[in-house]
Amino acid sequence: MPSTLRALALVCSLKSSPDPSSSELIARQVLDNLAGHGVEGDSVRVADHRVDPGVAVDMGEGDEWPRLRQKLVEADILVLATPTWVGHMSSIAQRVLERINAELSMTDQEGRPSMYGKVAVVAVVGNEDGAHKIVADCVQALSDTGFTIPATGSTYWNSEAMKPRDYKDLADTPEAVASTTATAARNAAHLAKLLRAQQYPAS
Amino acid sequence: MPSTLRALALVCSLKSSPDPSSSELIARQVLDNLAGHGVEGDSVRVADHRVDPGVAVDMGEGDEWPRLRQKLVEADILVLATPTWVGHMSSIAQRVLERINAELSMTDQEGRPSMYGKVAVVAVVGNEDGAHKIVADCVQALSDTGFTIPATGSTYWNSEAMKPRDYKDLADTPEAVASTTATAARNAAHLAKLLRAQQYPAS
Amino acid sequence: MPSTLRALALVCSLKSSPDPSSSELIARQVLDNLAGHGVEGDSVRVADHRVDPGVAVDMGEGDEWPRLRQKLVEADILVLATPTWVGHMSSIAQRVLERINAELSMTDQEGRPSMYGKVAVVAVVGNEDGAHKIVADCVQALSDTGFTIPATGSTYWNSEAMKPRDYKDLADTPEAVASTTATAARNAAHLAKLLRAQQYPAS
Amino acid sequence: MPSTLRALALVCSLKSSPDPSSSELIARQVLDNLAGHGVEGDSVRVADHRVDPGVAVDMGEGDEWPRLRQKLVEADILVLATPTWVGHMSSIAQRVLERINAELSMTDQEGRPSMYGKVAVVAVVGNEDGAHKIVADCVQALSDTGFTIPATGSTYWNSEAMKPRDYKDLADTPEAVASTTATAARNAAHLAKLLRAQQYPAS
Repeated sequence: MPSTLRALALVCSLKSSPDPSSSELIARQVLDNLAGHGVEGDSVRVADHRVDPGVAVDMGEGDEWPRLRQKLVEADILVLATPTWVGHMSSIAQRVLERINAELSMTDQEGRPSMYGKVAVVAVVGNEDGAHKIVADCVQALSDTGFTIPATGSTYWNSEAMKPRDYKDLADTPEAVASTTATAARNAAHLAKLLRAQQYPAS
Repeated sequence: MPSTLRALALVCSLKSSPDPSSSELIARQVLDNLAGHGVEGDSVRVADHRVDPGVAVDMGEGDEWPRLRQKLVEADILVLATPTWVGHMSSIAQRVLERINAELSMTDQEGRPSMYGKVAVVAVVGNEDGAHKIVADCVQALSDTGFTIPATGSTYWNSEAMKPRDYKDLADTPEAVASTTATAARNAAHLAKLLRAQQYPAS
Repeated sequence: MPSTLRALALVCSLKSSPDPSSSELIARQVLDNLAGHGVEGDSVRVADHRVDPGVAVDMGEGDEWPRLRQKLVEADILVLATPTWVGHMSSIAQRVLERINAELSMTDQEGRPSMYGKVAVVAVVGNEDGAHKIVADCVQALSDTGFTIPATGSTYWNSEAMKPRDYKDLADTPEAVASTTATAARNAAHLAKLLRAQQYPAS
Repeated sequence: MPSTLRALALVCSLKSSPDPSSSELIARQVLDNLAGHGVEGDSVRVADHRVDPGVAVDMGEGDEWPRLRQKLVEADILVLATPTWVGHMSSIAQRVLERINAELSMTDQEGRPSMYGKVAVVAVVGNEDGAHKIVADCVQALSDTGFTIPATGSTYWNSEAMKPRDYKDLADTPEAVASTTATAARNAAHLAKLLRAQQYPAS
């Protein structure tokens, strides 16, 4: 295992690259903050890949999740970034959670699910409200699957109700958002270091 | 049964009267719009009353829900108004839903639950995001309990993320919010008239 | 417009045909009950079609949503059927909601969104809990988009916690579930008839 | 600071003592497992106390939250136990989250919110589905407020859909539930030890 901590951002915009994405912007901001704590980061736009529906680790020919999964397995920190659609996480974020669900049956030699010891941070953007609910749905699924959620384990931005604007179109990142992003990253890095040094005990 | 349609707003602010309440303001706006469609309205600040925990119609001595319930029984339209706290409906709104849950076993002579034929509109305000999720939780519980939910069955306002402001402190109601409030009220009045004329069939 | 009411079931299983699907089974049961009230029904397994990510009515070449959308436009009642994954609706159900969201800007000559006058019923199955939450998320999105939600606007089955079983593998449909399915269908048919006769007024 | 780790269970049943409570039973099971890891535990039935509505640490005369809060401040692990009503956490659990929300502004000398370093476990029971959604809403609020959520940070039991039974009336705790409870407690104890030794850094 390398000595440096690694983070993977899975960006769940409905749009493929190179379309500008608010989710990618906030994910990038989390990764930049993690870099300041010595964490190496990588980002993947999930819509650029074919991720088949299903709840297995590999859905067979053509399914590109196994490649994304390999990056996840190698990471200490997952940054799950999603837009808000109809008040919910995107269908692509839900697809990712469905695929990660398979990790519950991928256990190590001592019986721990494969995601144990990893930390998750959730980042949500949207032109309308939804962040708290989306964070809720994501952290529940991720804790269930074996991730640990830090204090202040999320960052987000939603526009005012019925006044749609995009995060990527703001002149500046609001200071309170930047501060929350910094806190989430700082806490995630701290927690990932603790868990890297002392993994959860087996049963 | 009186010929005029009646609406009851249950305002689920955490604050008692006469503290100003954003939930009361938006409830009042729904009632004003309903009045324009010939619906008589009444509003109750639930925090002014002792509503005991439980899931029965009457929790016994001191419980004031039965008085509020009587108003609900006489209404054709329920306006459930709640603030957003930690991204959720208020504890008082959830208390109201718990008490309304008892209506499932209060059936008429043909076996229909007591709320059948009534229409519900949900109104949410908050200094942070949460409206879509709160509407979801409320309309699910209310449809389960026998209420019908109109097209555009809710109105709401949330401030921009991490930029807390209160609905009651806005200089003006944003036009898009006023328009949604008007639509929700218009649709609720239309639907309540239809259901008053032709109640759901018994099984 | 034909005189007979029409229903469309969008079955949001993660599995394509001809794999047996619990979501399809419960959707079929709703349609069978609707048929008893004179409603003609059609069912589509969404996973059999390519539904592209996006929030427009037509995402361009190869996108098969426009064909499904045409069926939806012709229907009076939508039956949205979904399994429970990680406690949430499937990624395919969320995809459908994202696409239906575009209907808000498809207005008729009097300015009403295209889904106004249609009724929605939600049907949820799962080998673990989630039905109430999924119904919540679906009915909020559907009411927002212009559907009307009847009293008892959903039917569902979840297995006992941590005791996974599939709805399609039950020896018999539990009587309480069959009764709820019948009620949801009866109420949806009644409401669709009322709204067919008297559409919501324009603003 | 004492050398032994401490846990506090806040039991959010709608019923006061000495009524038997399924929420209390599952909370007790979490505490028993924590005791096996050297964690001293205490349990409070919240309905036995007057917890006033509001979002401040102390709502004034008669408010008993400050006494409960003192126990929380002294604990390393919070076990939040709630029943399922209309598919949601109880109004009492939401009341507790509203009061804990005030901790965001109670910072230590280095600016960390007062709950930083504490670990939370959520325990849900219900005669119908709801656990995953309730866990979601609780862990989001608790992570927001400064708690850390362990891998497998919850335990739960829901009866099969429309087949109401109570957790406290089961002949035996299902083995899968007992195992999940043990895992949640083991992980919480491990994480609390790590955070006790190495608190999150200040900004």
